[in-house]
Amino acid sequence: MTIWELDTPALLIDLDRMEANLERAARYAEGHGLRLRPHTKTHKSPYLGRRQVEHGAAGLTVAKVSEAEVMAADGLGDLLLAYPVWGDAKWSRLTEIAKTAPIAVALDSEEPASGLSRHAVRTGLTIGILAEVDLGMRRCGFPPGQRFRDFTRAVDRMPGLKLEGLMFYPGHVNLAAPNGEEELEAVAAGLAEALDGFRQDGLSTSVVSGGSTPTLYHSHRVPGTTEIRPGTYVFNDRSQVAMGACSWNDCAATIMTTVVSRPSPGSAVIDGGSKTFTSDPVRPQEPGFGSIVGMSAVRFEKMSEEHGVLDLGDHQARPPQIGERLRIVPNHVCVTVNMHSTAHGIRGERVERSWPVKGRGKLH
Amino acid sequence: MTIWELDTPALLIDLDRMEANLERAARYAEGHGLRLRPHTKTHKSPYLGRRQVEHGAAGLTVAKVSEAEVMAADGLGDLLLAYPVWGDAKWSRLTEIAKTAPIAVALDSEEPASGLSRHAVRTGLTIGILAEVDLGMRRCGFPPGQRFRDFTRAVDRMPGLKLEGLMFYPGHVNLAAPNGEEELEAVAAGLAEALDGFRQDGLSTSVVSGGSTPTLYHSHRVPGTTEIRPGTYVFNDRSQVAMGACSWNDCAATIMTTVVSRPSPGSAVIDGGSKTFTSDPVRPQEPGFGSIVGMSAVRFEKMSEEHGVLDLGDHQARPPQIGERLRIVPNHVCVTVNMHSTAHGIRGERVERSWPVKGRGKLH
Repeated sequence: MTIWELDTPALLIDLDRMEANLERAARYAEGHGLRLRPHTKTHKSPYLGRRQVEHGAAGLTVAKVSEAEVMAADGLGDLLLAYPVWGDAKWSRLTEIAKTAPIAVALDSEEPASGLSRHAVRTGLTIGILAEVDLGMRRCGFPPGQRFRDFTRAVDRMPGLKLEGLMFYPGHVNLAAPNGEEELEAVAAGLAEALDGFRQDGLSTSVVSGGSTPTLYHSHRVPGTTEIRPGTYVFNDRSQVAMGACSWNDCAATIMTTVVSRPSPGSAVIDGGSKTFTSDPVRPQEPGFGSIVGMSAVRFEKMSEEHGVLDLGDHQARPPQIGERLRIVPNHVCVTVNMHSTAHGIRGERVERSWPVKGRGKLH
Repeated sequence: MTIWELDTPALLIDLDRMEANLERAARYAEGHGLRLRPHTKTHKSPYLGRRQVEHGAAGLTVAKVSEAEVMAADGLGDLLLAYPVWGDAKWSRLTEIAKTAPIAVALDSEEPASGLSRHAVRTGLTIGILAEVDLGMRRCGFPPGQRFRDFTRAVDRMPGLKLEGLMFYPGHVNLAAPNGEEELEAVAAGLAEALDGFRQDGLSTSVVSGGSTPTLYHSHRVPGTTEIRPGTYVFNDRSQVAMGACSWNDCAATIMTTVVSRPSPGSAVIDGGSKTFTSDPVRPQEPGFGSIVGMSAVRFEKMSEEHGVLDLGDHQARPPQIGERLRIVPNHVCVTVNMHSTAHGIRGERVERSWPVKGRGKLH
């Protein structure tokens, strides 16, 4: 089968590029003595989770209990649920998974830890816990300091839980930004402070989990890190290019679309909008909703739910015709993949293998 | 069952509000002699399509062949596919639907019309066509004028197709904006010009399909309109409130979330981000990703894929606790509903009925 036999819009994965991305990260991690635990939020597919393990990953990361269920159902264990999971329904499902697949959880406050402890004791399990510390991301976690130490000591005393170390996410660090180096240094300093507290309190630091795709190849510059959790690196996207984290040739995922209208000489409409790509902006903020392969002068300037409107710019002399197919590198591939039920792995124009995005839309 | 027994994030539909929205639009349309053909892109559910028909809708609108299939499979006919559908695969599926359910198509150029004509002839069908004209939206369609007239005359001559009239979408008109009235007047003037062309060319104007949710109750101010296709009106959202098209009490859809982290006195993290809400901005552009019910001082200021970060503002004295549930009116309900597999119809705290969002994620 070739890509021309697929209906559009279609999610295409360039397998050569993807495998190069996996291999490069695995070699880096191995070279620096870091375990690689990719975040599966980007591909949401057990098939690719297994490929990551085959390429040297020590385990996988998920954000939702339902994502963990999808991975465990395909025999993928050694999972980290990197989310402050809340509520009896989710804690109960989590302990069900833990009966067969090793799964640790990253938590950032006593309340969810206490609930999970109760469920672990009830089922006779011990659940591994990482304490999430905030090193500048300003999302979950207390910053290093007394409040964080109180939390880690409390978790360490809870039955059914085993505090194994800590987790941080340097997702705010953009090394292409003027303050990028400072941000990375602040992460390293914050981690040192947090680790000091762990040692003073006699807590385990056997797992120190960090890493992001934009800072992937700088992970060794945050001393104490033992494992990294990049997600986007498997495919890369326009945001990663904008942050200097990869080149266009490292972008493995494109959306193949069809031109469905040419309402004026300077514009074209494609059959994908916010329900195909999502409206995530490129990071750092730049205009446009994606980059059209081979047409750098064309701007993807507007979208509604099912329409993408292109400003053809210099391509007006040789514009794409109705029915022509355009491939687009999305702004943020993790949310775009989540809009597709099937991914098509290609080499050149040949579709080598298609697989279901089994974790698509898993919200619970 | 009550809403407290649902896991979060959950899509809740206030049935009293929704029915009031349906009834109000139906009464307006009836009062002005307009047929109501709601766009199902907002709810993507045959169950609600049927409710709309029960509330006086003359038919339904869809954007994708796969959405038409979902509606037709539940026995809902009289469909308008308001999209320049392209390609043999889609034309073939479209004629399959047309064998059992009346379906018309809105097209904006000769190329897709020609393809559809070929498939209609092959199957011995006649497919109704509306010619899409651009009255300022700058998406699909030629503006009124020679190019548009050439197109409509060409379609009128194509075998297997029956040109029934024209379609426009005044989705750019925001009557709360300084130039809103001018925009609406320009739509009316553009439509008059397009209709003149139709009459001069002896073409049918039995269907003149327009309307949008923001301009819903002003549809009679565009003379010649025979039917309207509002979509968002079934639920409404933060954008409609911002445009003055409805009040907060008309917003029927909320996402129920749970506070999972309180990393600082001034912030809370909820269990929904861009994979629950999407990152669509409010229209017209205002900051924030949704409005928290009963907490107008709280700002939904940041989101990542699974995290929503709230700035608690004045609520710091009585902040929401971990485990507390917050309900949020989304910025753009059409894309938010598309992220959920199930909708829960509620009255007060009681879940009266849940239904599958069968058209969710239909891309083809």
